[in-house]
Amino acid sequence: MSRLSPVLDRIDQSLDNSLDRLFSLLRIRSISTDPEFAADCRKGAEWLVEDLSSIGFDASVRNTPGHPMVVAHHDGPEGSPHVLFYGHYDVQPVDPLELWHDDPFAPALKEVEPGRKVITGRGSADDKGQLMTFVEACRAWKAVHGGLPCRITLLFEGEEESGSPSLKPFLEANAEELKADFALVCDTGMWDRDTPAISTALRGLVGEEVVVHAADRDLHSGEFGGAAANPIRILARALADIHDENGRVTIPGFYDGVEETPSQVLKSWETLGETAESFLGQVGLSVPSGEKGRSVLELVWARPTAEFNGITGGYTGKGFKTVIASQASAKVSFRLVHKQDPAKIRAAFRKFVEERIPADCSVEFHEHGGSPAIQLSYDSPFLANAKDALSDEWPKPAVMIAMGGSIPIVGDFQTYLGMESLLVGFGLSDDRIHSPNEKYELSSFHKGQRSWARILDALTK
Amino acid sequence: MSRLSPVLDRIDQSLDNSLDRLFSLLRIRSISTDPEFAADCRKGAEWLVEDLSSIGFDASVRNTPGHPMVVAHHDGPEGSPHVLFYGHYDVQPVDPLELWHDDPFAPALKEVEPGRKVITGRGSADDKGQLMTFVEACRAWKAVHGGLPCRITLLFEGEEESGSPSLKPFLEANAEELKADFALVCDTGMWDRDTPAISTALRGLVGEEVVVHAADRDLHSGEFGGAAANPIRILARALADIHDENGRVTIPGFYDGVEETPSQVLKSWETLGETAESFLGQVGLSVPSGEKGRSVLELVWARPTAEFNGITGGYTGKGFKTVIASQASAKVSFRLVHKQDPAKIRAAFRKFVEERIPADCSVEFHEHGGSPAIQLSYDSPFLANAKDALSDEWPKPAVMIAMGGSIPIVGDFQTYLGMESLLVGFGLSDDRIHSPNEKYELSSFHKGQRSWARILDALTK
Repeated sequence: MSRLSPVLDRIDQSLDNSLDRLFSLLRIRSISTDPEFAADCRKGAEWLVEDLSSIGFDASVRNTPGHPMVVAHHDGPEGSPHVLFYGHYDVQPVDPLELWHDDPFAPALKEVEPGRKVITGRGSADDKGQLMTFVEACRAWKAVHGGLPCRITLLFEGEEESGSPSLKPFLEANAEELKADFALVCDTGMWDRDTPAISTALRGLVGEEVVVHAADRDLHSGEFGGAAANPIRILARALADIHDENGRVTIPGFYDGVEETPSQVLKSWETLGETAESFLGQVGLSVPSGEKGRSVLELVWARPTAEFNGITGGYTGKGFKTVIASQASAKVSFRLVHKQDPAKIRAAFRKFVEERIPADCSVEFHEHGGSPAIQLSYDSPFLANAKDALSDEWPKPAVMIAMGGSIPIVGDFQTYLGMESLLVGFGLSDDRIHSPNEKYELSSFHKGQRSWARILDALTK
Repeated sequence: MSRLSPVLDRIDQSLDNSLDRLFSLLRIRSISTDPEFAADCRKGAEWLVEDLSSIGFDASVRNTPGHPMVVAHHDGPEGSPHVLFYGHYDVQPVDPLELWHDDPFAPALKEVEPGRKVITGRGSADDKGQLMTFVEACRAWKAVHGGLPCRITLLFEGEEESGSPSLKPFLEANAEELKADFALVCDTGMWDRDTPAISTALRGLVGEEVVVHAADRDLHSGEFGGAAANPIRILARALADIHDENGRVTIPGFYDGVEETPSQVLKSWETLGETAESFLGQVGLSVPSGEKGRSVLELVWARPTAEFNGITGGYTGKGFKTVIASQASAKVSFRLVHKQDPAKIRAAFRKFVEERIPADCSVEFHEHGGSPAIQLSYDSPFLANAKDALSDEWPKPAVMIAMGGSIPIVGDFQTYLGMESLLVGFGLSDDRIHSPNEKYELSSFHKGQRSWARILDALTK
């Protein structure tokens, strides 16, 4: 008999107990953004420490200038890898409260259709339910085998929903203690109800603000129109020049470091059945605006972008004013992939704009953050093993997806701990995280625990 | 002896008296935009009626829903033309009061350098001092000849500085009474201290607001960037396309009705010595942004423009937000010349933008006014006579200039009274109208009176 199946059995048998524990955690009002709930956040951290200690973890509440972290250690067999698991115990605010069908802090199990039950309550999916899938997998493994298959460190944050102000300093200050061979992060979702997913790539980001200055005061367009430089026109020209008619970014050197996605990966994305109509249809659109000849999933997962996030200049109030503004500005961001270098992209963008500024005008730039893309190697055995483990658990094989946005923790782990992350989660797109009536599928909670047991098994064979 | 010289002599002899009268008018705090000064505005109108009556005008205060108009009639010899003279007796507010060297409503005559005196006070140049130049010319003519050289109607408005809300209805309701052969408007300036000017052209205006709609909500640029339409990008593209690399407007049909300015007019403008450096230098610029190969004066006086007066979309606050906005909008205006048709320009612009809107996006337009350009025929004898009259009075010959902006009254006279206007004024660019320490040159006031006497003489010979 394998070492895995008794663990899976144990998980199945303990489901009711594991639900009771999750409900206890869900009852704690650990809303991190509202200072009124600071004591509740600490209560959440303390609850976790107590629970983890009961499994045999060396767990502690670790104070920060904000809400505390929970750090817990458990050793593993000699020579086994060291894994850091990350989740967060804080939750989003619950207002508007009147839109909730039930008390957000009185979790319950509800049968929403025959054979389908969901766990209701704030934090059920984001992220208490998810982090407990891993804790329960550890508990079952320990109960069956008396130990864990590898050395495991748990890091639970209490400020994820309020910008993680304490995270970077904490990682930096405790790098030695937290550094592991790799990280497991459980704060993402499945592709769909039947298909588990591993997020293998996250786009990077360069944020820029560009301010074009023309005349030294606002001008009357009757008096000066046709002769004086108009900063809105200059800015519109510079921004328009950034894309060619095929949606490609024209900034010289922009595509340096961008790789073509392996054809087998593209093929696997095709099997997901997402179309421009299905993807864009959810927001009332239908025509992909990016590089022509690429699927929407490739566009948002594996291609870099230039996006204009804001623009302002001149008179923007009601009515009309025949003014030629003295300045106009835009916020521009670039999503990066693969090996694109944020510093080079920033410099190339600035040069590109500067070349389009008339001799009597000027431009200034303000930096708004920059981080490279994160790309797991598609052919690492680590990834392949995790994928197989997930595929064994769920009705459909696991897919390797990507994320168009960034998850800061993944970059932080790379930056401060020199560590890659495996992003696996069991949320569904209809979980209503951050909204009233948040829920987590009972199947996500149950099969999530089993999935982690399988992954721990696969990664430590 | 000519009929003119005794009038000029009379003006010279009466200068002190005419100054006393102007000072009386300047002491009246007729700030039209502030309701607190409503009684002062009425006092201004009543003062004018009394003064005009003393000359023999049939003058009356005419109530409107706002501040009153003054209308005054004086007949002329059989067969003489009928002239309508326009000015306004209301003034701008005076704040910030602490920047005034003297009480704005205690006018005085000040010697600012040897041999150069100015009249100080709010309204001295805009427009009380100017309108009184014409009144004093009439007074002197009447005193010398016992009558006026032509039938004259005076229209003095009390709301010019607050948007003239009552003007159009008043013109419409009193068209029969006010309609004359042509109008004289004294609310403009000289080219410079020595050179009188007649404004022969005013650009028209089309105002448009364009709103581009993309997704049905704001999107996260991580999730949708590269796939979803970005309305700022679409708008920037459409606006950028409006000018070619030579500063020419590319909207099809835009130049229909635009005529080349006669070469002798261009040559006369050249003699004015205005350069790109001198014109743009006053606002910190130096490179003309309009159609290449044309002088700045031609650009602002005789060429049509497309200007972007305002733009807004997405996140424009401090910091950064990786949003793809659901909409972006711009305020766009076109200055028109010659026979350009506002309705056609508006339609061509809308079509031009619509052609640049992706299939899954939409655009809406809001109309913000439209008026055609006003262009006096350069070779009318009317204009030539007035030009000669002015040239006789001043050190340098009069020039025919144009104005880049519109003066609504001129269009209103054309629309409601079917009447062309001759724009002659004696303001200087350093008169600080609308600002603290407004002044009017004593020479403007004195030679302005003489100029009107000469013009009346020239136009009625």
